[in-house]
Amino acid sequence: MTIAVLLFDDFETLDVYGPVEVFGRLTDLYTIKFYSLDGGQIKNRHGVSALTEKLEYVYENLDIFIVPGGLGTRKEVENKVLIDKIKEIATFSKFVLTVCTGSALLAQTGLLDHKTATSNKRAFAWVVTNGANVNWNKKARWTIDDKFYTSSGVSAGIDMVLGFISDRHGIEFARRIAFEIEYSWNEDKDNDTFQVE
Amino acid sequence: MTIAVLLFDDFETLDVYGPVEVFGRLTDLYTIKFYSLDGGQIKNRHGVSALTEKLEYVYENLDIFIVPGGLGTRKEVENKVLIDKIKEIATFSKFVLTVCTGSALLAQTGLLDHKTATSNKRAFAWVVTNGANVNWNKKARWTIDDKFYTSSGVSAGIDMVLGFISDRHGIEFARRIAFEIEYSWNEDKDNDTFQVE
Repeated sequence: MTIAVLLFDDFETLDVYGPVEVFGRLTDLYTIKFYSLDGGQIKNRHGVSALTEKLEYVYENLDIFIVPGGLGTRKEVENKVLIDKIKEIATFSKFVLTVCTGSALLAQTGLLDHKTATSNKRAFAWVVTNGANVNWNKKARWTIDDKFYTSSGVSAGIDMVLGFISDRHGIEFARRIAFEIEYSWNEDKDNDTFQVE
Repeated sequence: MTIAVLLFDDFETLDVYGPVEVFGRLTDLYTIKFYSLDGGQIKNRHGVSALTEKLEYVYENLDIFIVPGGLGTRKEVENKVLIDKIKEIATFSKFVLTVCTGSALLAQTGLLDHKTATSNKRAFAWVVTNGANVNWNKKARWTIDDKFYTSSGVSAGIDMVLGFISDRHGIEFARRIAFEIEYSWNEDKDNDTFQVE
């Protein structure tokens, strides 16, 4: 399966590279490429610099589109060109996975309307303003509705991707990956233990 | 504090970006830069491409030197120019943190001789061949000896860095970061729950 990861300035580091670690080690099953609106080097406030191709080069036979969160989403939800491009790719992609405040970007496309989704619990009040018609679930570690997977904050993206892999390849396969990367997988998608009261 | 992260081809994604997520969000306390032997774009088999500066540009007032693991270490332990450079930087750096098989690279410098260290438990038999005089600890999630922190595999790097931050800024501060990134921190450095029998 082909994976396109969206990057934009001030994306959250682990939102991206947690899922990339999980999918990336399954080299026989998944191929990952990184994209941004204009291509080239994308940076974040953690000092990370990553090389990307232009979003327009994403092929229509895409299997998985990953949309991360981060402080940059506060600006990008206003970027109509980017939101339109996310909508186009999310429409033809077989699956769409958002991490953290990445669900705010996807909500802006309207594709999450009347679907269940979640996000970072500390940014929840802001995220929901980006999708008045989304069934926002504040309790979930991650949600699945139709082809859309959305996760809570940062490390929850790793939990969700292990869940995605479990849904495709079985839970024992997913548990083995969690063990290999020595990650304590929160397997219960319905209960985020990092909720804020 | 200034942080230099060593990259080389086929580094392990999460070995690098887990610690970077933790240190990176503390923008008032830590500044991170990425380096490689020759500078430029460094790639790994997960499709990640990261921009680096040359190792020779690391300043001598460096506070923290991070050495990740990954399949690339199998080749780099034979790279005498790189090992010499790691030795030089690790000698003047105030702290040196290795993740996963990164301890094999540090062991090759001789700086871990007669010190306690650990590594990825699934690669342990190979790692120990890189340092006959190192006190290898196969039970630890991470070890601290003098200025050297070494961790077990992949996600253990996040646990170690949270431990490093706990040692500098207190455990409640470290727990708050773990909560913010929604990470289930394995706080006990002496017990790696991902041991292989």
